[in-house]
Amino acid sequence: MATDIRLKDELGSITENLVETYTACGLTHHLGHTPLPSRDGVVDALADLIDVLYPGFARRQNLHIGNVGYYVGSIVDGLHDKLTQQFARALRHELSHQQPDLDFEALAQQKVVAFLKQLPGLRAILEQDVRAAYDGDPAARSHFEIVFCYPGLEAVTTYRLAHILLGLGVPLIPRMMTESAHAKTGIDIHPGAEIGPGFFIDHGTGVVIGETCHIGRRVKIYQGVTLGALSFPRDSDGQIIRGQKRHPTLEDEVVVYANATVLGGDTVVGHHSVVASNVWLTHSVEPYTQVLLEKPQLRIRPAGAEAG
Amino acid sequence: MATDIRLKDELGSITENLVETYTACGLTHHLGHTPLPSRDGVVDALADLIDVLYPGFARRQNLHIGNVGYYVGSIVDGLHDKLTQQFARALRHELSHQQPDLDFEALAQQKVVAFLKQLPGLRAILEQDVRAAYDGDPAARSHFEIVFCYPGLEAVTTYRLAHILLGLGVPLIPRMMTESAHAKTGIDIHPGAEIGPGFFIDHGTGVVIGETCHIGRRVKIYQGVTLGALSFPRDSDGQIIRGQKRHPTLEDEVVVYANATVLGGDTVVGHHSVVASNVWLTHSVEPYTQVLLEKPQLRIRPAGAEAG
Amino acid sequence: MATDIRLKDELGSITENLVETYTACGLTHHLGHTPLPSRDGVVDALADLIDVLYPGFARRQNLHIGNVGYYVGSIVDGLHDKLTQQFARALRHELSHQQPDLDFEALAQQKVVAFLKQLPGLRAILEQDVRAAYDGDPAARSHFEIVFCYPGLEAVTTYRLAHILLGLGVPLIPRMMTESAHAKTGIDIHPGAEIGPGFFIDHGTGVVIGETCHIGRRVKIYQGVTLGALSFPRDSDGQIIRGQKRHPTLEDEVVVYANATVLGGDTVVGHHSVVASNVWLTHSVEPYTQVLLEKPQLRIRPAGAEAG
Repeated sequence: MATDIRLKDELGSITENLVETYTACGLTHHLGHTPLPSRDGVVDALADLIDVLYPGFARRQNLHIGNVGYYVGSIVDGLHDKLTQQFARALRHELSHQQPDLDFEALAQQKVVAFLKQLPGLRAILEQDVRAAYDGDPAARSHFEIVFCYPGLEAVTTYRLAHILLGLGVPLIPRMMTESAHAKTGIDIHPGAEIGPGFFIDHGTGVVIGETCHIGRRVKIYQGVTLGALSFPRDSDGQIIRGQKRHPTLEDEVVVYANATVLGGDTVVGHHSVVASNVWLTHSVEPYTQVLLEKPQLRIRPAGAEAG
Repeated sequence: MATDIRLKDELGSITENLVETYTACGLTHHLGHTPLPSRDGVVDALADLIDVLYPGFARRQNLHIGNVGYYVGSIVDGLHDKLTQQFARALRHELSHQQPDLDFEALAQQKVVAFLKQLPGLRAILEQDVRAAYDGDPAARSHFEIVFCYPGLEAVTTYRLAHILLGLGVPLIPRMMTESAHAKTGIDIHPGAEIGPGFFIDHGTGVVIGETCHIGRRVKIYQGVTLGALSFPRDSDGQIIRGQKRHPTLEDEVVVYANATVLGGDTVVGHHSVVASNVWLTHSVEPYTQVLLEKPQLRIRPAGAEAG
Repeated sequence: MATDIRLKDELGSITENLVETYTACGLTHHLGHTPLPSRDGVVDALADLIDVLYPGFARRQNLHIGNVGYYVGSIVDGLHDKLTQQFARALRHELSHQQPDLDFEALAQQKVVAFLKQLPGLRAILEQDVRAAYDGDPAARSHFEIVFCYPGLEAVTTYRLAHILLGLGVPLIPRMMTESAHAKTGIDIHPGAEIGPGFFIDHGTGVVIGETCHIGRRVKIYQGVTLGALSFPRDSDGQIIRGQKRHPTLEDEVVVYANATVLGGDTVVGHHSVVASNVWLTHSVEPYTQVLLEKPQLRIRPAGAEAG
């Protein structure tokens, strides 16, 4: 390659200038900090978790009730070690300033075991999610097809795992898990949301479910639905106040169709209500309400004109 | 690592409790079944298929008309074996209960060869898709840029392959292919949809095209467009009736702009019509119609107020 | 495998028929051309760039201000070689027809060094983007969480790198970079857009920012927002005219909420204005304007009816 050596000499000063900015710009580097959890490590553990929650689908074939115990046992054993390492990193990163003497590995292990103990109970909830998906989608040919092919179930499963971890006080990793599902499915569910069983997201790309949403049982939502904040209360300094309920409540059996937006922490969509596509809803509605847009106005135009 | 051995001892009971749920919760495992097609195997074959449909773009460089035959021949030969293995798994999984004595490998091979025979004809349709993309996007600088960089074309190509497989009676794999494209592009096209040549999806994230859509020639749609179901007919038991036409028909030369939603199996958008952005359309419109929203009402508010 | 040899014999004719289409269909192959840049090579270089822009987050842990110089220096050195190779391919592909005698490696190296020189200045802008994200999102617990977990920042960072390359006259690679971010985040920002510092995209799936957008300082947009074209001017032959301003201008401090669509090259959203969710806006508004939809009409319907 016809490399000009004089140009290559400039790389030293470029590096020096970059390193100088690491002092000047402190928000965009992570130098001199305790290690963060490993993204690859968390994604790898998440794949193991999904494998024991839905055995026989993703990886090892020819599992049956007689041999699955050995397979699952070895994965659970490995998960204990993988998760303890990542949880310890997350806990040390979050707590070492205030409590430098904590035994973070021991604390991590306790949380890992408490987490793994909840997996059997979680499977009963996921069973209801799968049933709801089959009952709610005419295109579904079978229940197993939903576990095998539906990205919505993967996003909901990942959220339910992350939500358990959040409740156990594990920092960072819940968000890392839901963001990995977001990247794969386009479905962004905050780990803090409260979501009842029998939850079905169809197609799902563009769905956003905010941190303080409350969602009841057997709720169904479609692609592009936002359950978001209407306004952000600010303190006397104009800073956004964090941690308040900013996102809506959907009661049992609610359906929200494609690209609808439901906003506000005081907004309650009553049970058995239906919010139609592209609706923008910022106030509460009674049970059994249907919320629809007016029919659009039609204009006849000469062919070839465009509007997009 | 300061592992507490007593905690680790609990892993056995956690595994036992998990395994017990595999009996109780039967929808969320795949134990004791014939093997499913391999996701990695299907994704690998899909990459080979796209490589022979668009030679010289993705992998091997410096191909020319004099040497491409050897390269393509070796890929086609490998595809024969890869696809036969995956098709056989899918066919056995679907049919072995009713017809246990079928020679699934032989049946798979017949379908593979019938499928590969359709690739040359498919390239003529893809050529029209590429031309439509270039003609329809002012940001496109050249035709090859569309093949090289546009995710919409990748999603449409994958759909066209999956649609052929569906017609050949190959189970599972069509949906696996379109879901892999969905994960990469955010575009969710059901393999069952009927889509004419010269189809262009620009940007594409959030597009959903339902199972029973009929789309004519030289149709253009943008990101966030849903072609979906308006309502699901139910039988006397309240079960959704599957397999009816639930999704709209777009005639030739229709354009549907960003985040519009067109719903219903009886909804026909007449040829040369334009549906503008964010429209919610649930009834048929004549040819050469433009469907637009009313201009939004404006409110002047003090700065700093928020709504979203 | 019960392979029928007679069927396998047909693979030869299938290959011949495919190769014939490479002559007939010229838009869908890249035979006999100079090599394209490598997608894997560009993605690999992009990961290196993000690593030196946000050191200590993604890869190597335990970096501190004392050792980071060695780490960054080695990455910058490797980037020089990786990028020179890819830039040279892109330049040769674009220019070799008109200027076959150019030294493409030397030209590429000049552009690589000019590009790397801009990284320190870019970090100061990214610092403002991170601050804007923290100030704009009540769910954010800390600044580092935004760098570590927020896909919007990854998409904006990739866009800013691609925009610099576009300004340096590097072909193809800017679009390859933004499409790789699009695939990961669902956020599609054209490298040609002009975007000021302090830009925050929250959630982001489905966002499309067109080639000729002008976006001011401290602008915030949400998932599903399209900043797009209203109509495409055509020449006397009916061909779309390329390169005109087709996309809107957002002045400083504008907020556009989820699934809103703002269209047109003449559309200017005045500073400190707010466009609410699901709005369709095709004309200019004054500073400090809020644009909201009418409240949707409500209809009370019997439970069980569906619309979506």
